[in-house]
Amino acid sequence: MQKREFLKSGLAALGGLGFLGAARAGVPAVTKASDVRWDEEWDTVIVGSGVAATCAGNEALDQGLKKVIMVEKMPVFGGNSAITGFWINIPRSPEQLAHGVTDDSPELFLKDTLKAGEGFNDPKLAHELCFRALESLEYLKKLGCKFAPTPFIQGGHSKVRSLAPEVSAGVSVMIPLHRHFMEKGGVMRKNTIVDEVVKDDSGRVVGVAVRENYAFDIGSRDNDLTNTTGVRKYYKAKKGVIFAAGGFVNDWRMCSLIDPKITKETEGTNHPGATAGALFTLMRAGGVPVHLSYIQWGPWCSPDDKGIGMGADVCDYLKQYGAAFDPKTGRRCFNELGNRTELTNDIFALKNEDGTQRFAVLIADSQFVPKVSIERYLTKSLNSGTTKKFDTLEALADFYKIPLEPLKAEIAKYNGWIKEGKEFDPEFHRPLTPNEGVLMGKGPWYGHRLTSKLHYTMGGIKINEKTQVIGQNFEPIPGLYAAGEITGGVHGVTRLGGNSVLDGIVFGRIAGRTVAEAEEAK
Amino acid sequence: MQKREFLKSGLAALGGLGFLGAARAGVPAVTKASDVRWDEEWDTVIVGSGVAATCAGNEALDQGLKKVIMVEKMPVFGGNSAITGFWINIPRSPEQLAHGVTDDSPELFLKDTLKAGEGFNDPKLAHELCFRALESLEYLKKLGCKFAPTPFIQGGHSKVRSLAPEVSAGVSVMIPLHRHFMEKGGVMRKNTIVDEVVKDDSGRVVGVAVRENYAFDIGSRDNDLTNTTGVRKYYKAKKGVIFAAGGFVNDWRMCSLIDPKITKETEGTNHPGATAGALFTLMRAGGVPVHLSYIQWGPWCSPDDKGIGMGADVCDYLKQYGAAFDPKTGRRCFNELGNRTELTNDIFALKNEDGTQRFAVLIADSQFVPKVSIERYLTKSLNSGTTKKFDTLEALADFYKIPLEPLKAEIAKYNGWIKEGKEFDPEFHRPLTPNEGVLMGKGPWYGHRLTSKLHYTMGGIKINEKTQVIGQNFEPIPGLYAAGEITGGVHGVTRLGGNSVLDGIVFGRIAGRTVAEAEEAK
Ligand SMILES: Cc1cc2nc3c(=O)[nH]c(=O)nc-3n(C[C@H](O)[C@H](O)[C@H](O)COP(=O)(O)OP(=O)(O)OC[C@H]3O[C@@H](n4cnc5c(N)ncnc54)[C@H](O)[C@@H]3O)c2cc1C
Ligand SMILES: Cc1cc2nc3c(=O)[nH]c(=O)nc-3n(C[C@H](O)[C@H](O)[C@H](O)COP(=O)(O)OP(=O)(O)OC[C@H]3O[C@@H](n4cnc5c(N)ncnc54)[C@H](O)[C@@H]3O)c2cc1C
Repeated sequence: MQKREFLKSGLAALGGLGFLGAARAGVPAVTKASDVRWDEEWDTVIVGSGVAATCAGNEALDQGLKKVIMVEKMPVFGGNSAITGFWINIPRSPEQLAHGVTDDSPELFLKDTLKAGEGFNDPKLAHELCFRALESLEYLKKLGCKFAPTPFIQGGHSKVRSLAPEVSAGVSVMIPLHRHFMEKGGVMRKNTIVDEVVKDDSGRVVGVAVRENYAFDIGSRDNDLTNTTGVRKYYKAKKGVIFAAGGFVNDWRMCSLIDPKITKETEGTNHPGATAGALFTLMRAGGVPVHLSYIQWGPWCSPDDKGIGMGADVCDYLKQYGAAFDPKTGRRCFNELGNRTELTNDIFALKNEDGTQRFAVLIADSQFVPKVSIERYLTKSLNSGTTKKFDTLEALADFYKIPLEPLKAEIAKYNGWIKEGKEFDPEFHRPLTPNEGVLMGKGPWYGHRLTSKLHYTMGGIKINEKTQVIGQNFEPIPGLYAAGEITGGVHGVTRLGGNSVLDGIVFGRIAGRTVAEAEEAK
Repeated sequence: MQKREFLKSGLAALGGLGFLGAARAGVPAVTKASDVRWDEEWDTVIVGSGVAATCAGNEALDQGLKKVIMVEKMPVFGGNSAITGFWINIPRSPEQLAHGVTDDSPELFLKDTLKAGEGFNDPKLAHELCFRALESLEYLKKLGCKFAPTPFIQGGHSKVRSLAPEVSAGVSVMIPLHRHFMEKGGVMRKNTIVDEVVKDDSGRVVGVAVRENYAFDIGSRDNDLTNTTGVRKYYKAKKGVIFAAGGFVNDWRMCSLIDPKITKETEGTNHPGATAGALFTLMRAGGVPVHLSYIQWGPWCSPDDKGIGMGADVCDYLKQYGAAFDPKTGRRCFNELGNRTELTNDIFALKNEDGTQRFAVLIADSQFVPKVSIERYLTKSLNSGTTKKFDTLEALADFYKIPLEPLKAEIAKYNGWIKEGKEFDPEFHRPLTPNEGVLMGKGPWYGHRLTSKLHYTMGGIKINEKTQVIGQNFEPIPGLYAAGEITGGVHGVTRLGGNSVLDGIVFGRIAGRTVAEAEEAK
C-alpha cells in the first residue's frame, strides 16, 4: 500500500472511530451546521427503508418534494418490514364486510388497542392509528399491494379484522411500495449509516452525518459498539429528517439493561440490524424516550428454528391439545396457556444446575392434527425439523432423552383431570377446557421444543400526532420527525398483533406530509 | 436602577435563559472544561440533600475526603427524605429477632424484592440492597437515629421485617445524618440548582454548572421549563459528581408522556421539587435511562387531604370492612381491593359527563373501629377532616349528596353476598372474605373520599453496583455517579414499601466510598 493511500484510509478509520467513540462514550455528538461542509443536499433525508420509511418517502414525493433519499445501513433494503408476515388490522375493510362482519368500527378497534396498551397509549396517536386503518389499506391497494380475501382474528382483537398479504410475506407488500418510491424519483442508498443529526444555531435539525460504504457486521452481536467502517459524509435535509429506523430487539445490551433475563444468547425474531443505535442518536439529539421497558416476547418459537422460523403456528395447536414437559424429569412444567409474559418467564425458569438453559418439550398425540386449520403449517414445521413426529411415545422420549415412566405417569395424571372435567389443572392453573376433552394416547406422537424469542419493542422516541420528535422541553424539536417501530407511545404496554405495520403506514405517511409542508431551513 | 446594575442582572437573566433554553430545547449542553473558569473546587459535588446524598457525603468524609458539598435547589434541605415515613426493611434486625421472627434472611428479602420487581430488577443491585440492609440499620443507629422497637409487615413482604423511626417521620432520621455531615466538615448549600455536568476532553465528568441564588417557584407546575433565576457558577469536582437528586413524580409533563391519564391536575405525595430536570441533565450527559415507564401510585389517598395526608392508614380499613360508592348513582363502583394499578385505573375511570373527575366515597359502619390497630390513625384522619363521622347513613348520604335509596339497596345487596358466604362479589370480583363476615348496618357511619396519588418513580438513570452511571456505550461514564430514587433498576416493576430509603442508604454509601477511592481528575 502506498503511504499516501495508507494515510487516507487510516484517517477515515480514525475519523469513524473518533466519532463513534465520542458519541457512544456519552459525549453528546450533535454536530453544528456551522462546523460542516455539506456533501449533498436533499429536501428530506429518511433514515431506514422499511414500511415506515417508504410510506414517508412516497408521501413526500406525492406531495411534490423532488429530492428524497432513504438511507439504509444494511446491505439489503426493507428491515423487519421485508421479513414480517404483514398481517394488518382493518376495521370495515371490503374483505371484512364480505365475510359478514358488519359490526366492527374504528372505535371498537381503538378500544381493543387501548385495552392491550393498558391505557398507556398516547390517545391521539392511538386514535390516528385506528381511524386511518381503512385509508391505509386503500393506499396500499392503489400502489398494487395484494391481500388475501379472507379476514381472520388475532389475540386481543374483539373482531375478525386482520388481513394477510396474498403472498404471505412482507416483501410482497414492500416491492410495490419501493417501486412507487423509485418511479417517483426517490433515491435508495444502502450500506450507509446515519450516526448523528446536524443542527443549526437555532437548534433546528438541518441534516445528518452518515458513513457511506458502511459494512454492518452481521456476525457480531456488538456491531454498534465496535464497527468503525465507512466514510463520513454530511447530507443536508432542507425540510427535515425523518427517522424510520425500526425497533431495537436485536440489541442484547440495551435489552438486558431493561430486562436482565435477556443475555447475549437470547434469540430474537428480528433482522440483525434491529439495534438501539438510531434511538440513541435521537436521544443525543434531545429526544425523550418513552415505554422502553415494554419489550414483546414471542413464546411460540423453538430453539430448533432460526428467527421466527417455521413452527410458530403449529406451536399454538401443540399447546392447546398437548402439554409441555421438562425433559430432565419427565414432568409437566408450567401453564402452557399463560400470557406472553408469564409463559416467557416460565420457559426461561427451566435451568440446568450449571445455569444453562433447558427447553421444555411440547408433546401432543395425533388428535390435534385434524384441528390444524391450514395443513401446510404442520408440513412446513415437520419439513424444517422443528416439529418431530414419532410412531410411539417411547421413540419420542428416547429422542428427547425424557425419562419414560415419569412422562407416562404425568400424561395419565393430566388425562385424569380432563376426564374429571376439571376447569383448571391443580398444579399450574392451566385452563383445561380449550383442549376439548381430548385424552392424549393415540399415536403417532409429536414433539416440539419450546422457547420464547424477543419480537418487538413497544417503546421508542416520543412523537406527537404530526410525527414531530418531542424534546426535553416537551416541545417538538424543529426539523426532526420519526415514525414506525422506533417511536413509542402508540401501543402502550402491549402491541396487538397486526398493529405494527399499520403504525408504519399511518405515521410514515403523516411524516411525509408534515415534512412536505414544513418551511425550508436556510 | 443604575444602568450598570441593570446590565449585570439583565445578562445574568439572559445567561440563565440562554442556558436553559438551549438545554431544554434539546441541544445537548454538556459543557467542556476548557470553556470554563472554575468558581470553586471540591473533592466531590453531591447533587441533592436527601438520604442518598447525605449518606454519600458522610461516607466520602468518613473515607477521608475534605472538601465535600451537597448542592440543593430547594429553599429547604432533605427532599422527599424529610417528609417520608422512613419505614425501612431489615431482615435479622435485633428488633425482628426480639419479636420472635427468627427465620428471615437477606435471601428471603431478596426473593420478595425480585418478585415485586417481576424479575426486572438488576440482580446485582437488588442483591446489594438486600444484603446490606442490616449494616445500614447499624450505620443509622451509630449516627444516632432511633427506631421504634416493634417491627411490622408491609404488602409484598413475606416476613415482619419493617421498622419505623421512633418519632414517626423521615426528618427524625435526617437530622442526625445531616449533623454528622456538618460535624465532619461537609458544606450544605441550598437555593442552588445543578443544571449541567462539565466534562474534560477525555469525556470524564470533572464538575458541574450551577445557578446560585436559584428561587424554585413552588406555585408553578412548570418550574423547570420557565425558571431562569439564579447566577451561573462552575464547581470543579476533582473526584467526581454524585447525583442523588430524587425521583420525578412531581413532573406532570414527564409523567403524562409516560401515562396519559396523568394531567397537570393529578396530585402526588412528593415534595414540589421532585421533577425530571436532573434526570434530563444525566441523559444529556449520555446516561441511559431504564424503567421510566414504572410509576407507583398510592390508591390510599384522599382528595380532601394534601399530599399523602392523614387518612392513608384508615383508608385500608375502610376498604376492608366497607365499600366504595359512586356519589352520583349511589352504586358500588369497583373492586376496592384491586392491586395498586387496577384500583388507580378504576378510581380515575369515574368521570362526570364534562370529563371532570368524580371521587368514589368509601363508606363503612362502626364495626371497623375496634380493628384499627393504632387508634390514633382514625383520630388523626377525623381531626383533619379527611374521614368524616355521621350518626346515620341518611346524614352521610346527605353530606356527600349520594342518592339514599340506591345506596341502601346497594348495601343490602352487598350484605346479601356476605350472608351467603360468597368468596367474591359477582359484580367486580372483589374478595369478600377479608371483611370477616361483617354486615354493614351499625351506626355511626364513616365516609372518606378516595383517590390515588403519584408516589414514586421506579425508573431512572442506570447505574452499576459501584453506582457508576452507565453511558450509551454500556460502559460507566467516568466521574459520574448516582444513587437513590434518581436511579433505575434496583426495584424493577414495583418497589416494595420500605425499600426506597434503604436504597438511598445502601447506594448513597457505596457512591461516597467509590468516589473517595476514585483517581483525581487533572
Ligand atoms: C418475523 C416478524 C414477523 C412480524 N409480523 C408482523 C405482522 O404480521 N404484523 C405486524 O403488524 N407486525 C409484524 N411484525 C412487526 C413489524 O414487522 C415491524 O414492527 C415493522 O415492519 C417495522 O417497520 P419500520 O419501518 O418501523 O422498521 P423496519 O422495517 O425494521 O425498518 C427500519 C430500517 O432502518 C434501518 N436502520 C436502523 N438504524 C439505521 C441507521 N442509523 N442508519 C440507516 N438505517 C438504519 C434498519 O436497518 C431497517 O432496515 C413482525 C416482525 C417480525 C420480525
Ligand atoms: C410521603 C412519602 C412517604 C414515603 N414513605 C416511605 C417509607 O416509609 N419508606 C420508604 O422506603 N420510602 C418511602 N417513600 C419514598 C422515599 O421517601 C424516597 O424515595 C426517598 O426519600 C428518596 O431519597 P433520595 O435521597 O433519593 O431523594 P430525595 O430525598 O427526594 O432528595 C433529592 C433532593 O435532590 C434535590 N434536587 C433535585 N434536582 C436537583 C438539582 N438539579 N440540583 C440540586 N438539587 C436537586 C431535590 O430538591 C431533593 O431535595 C416515601 C415518599 C413520600 C413522598
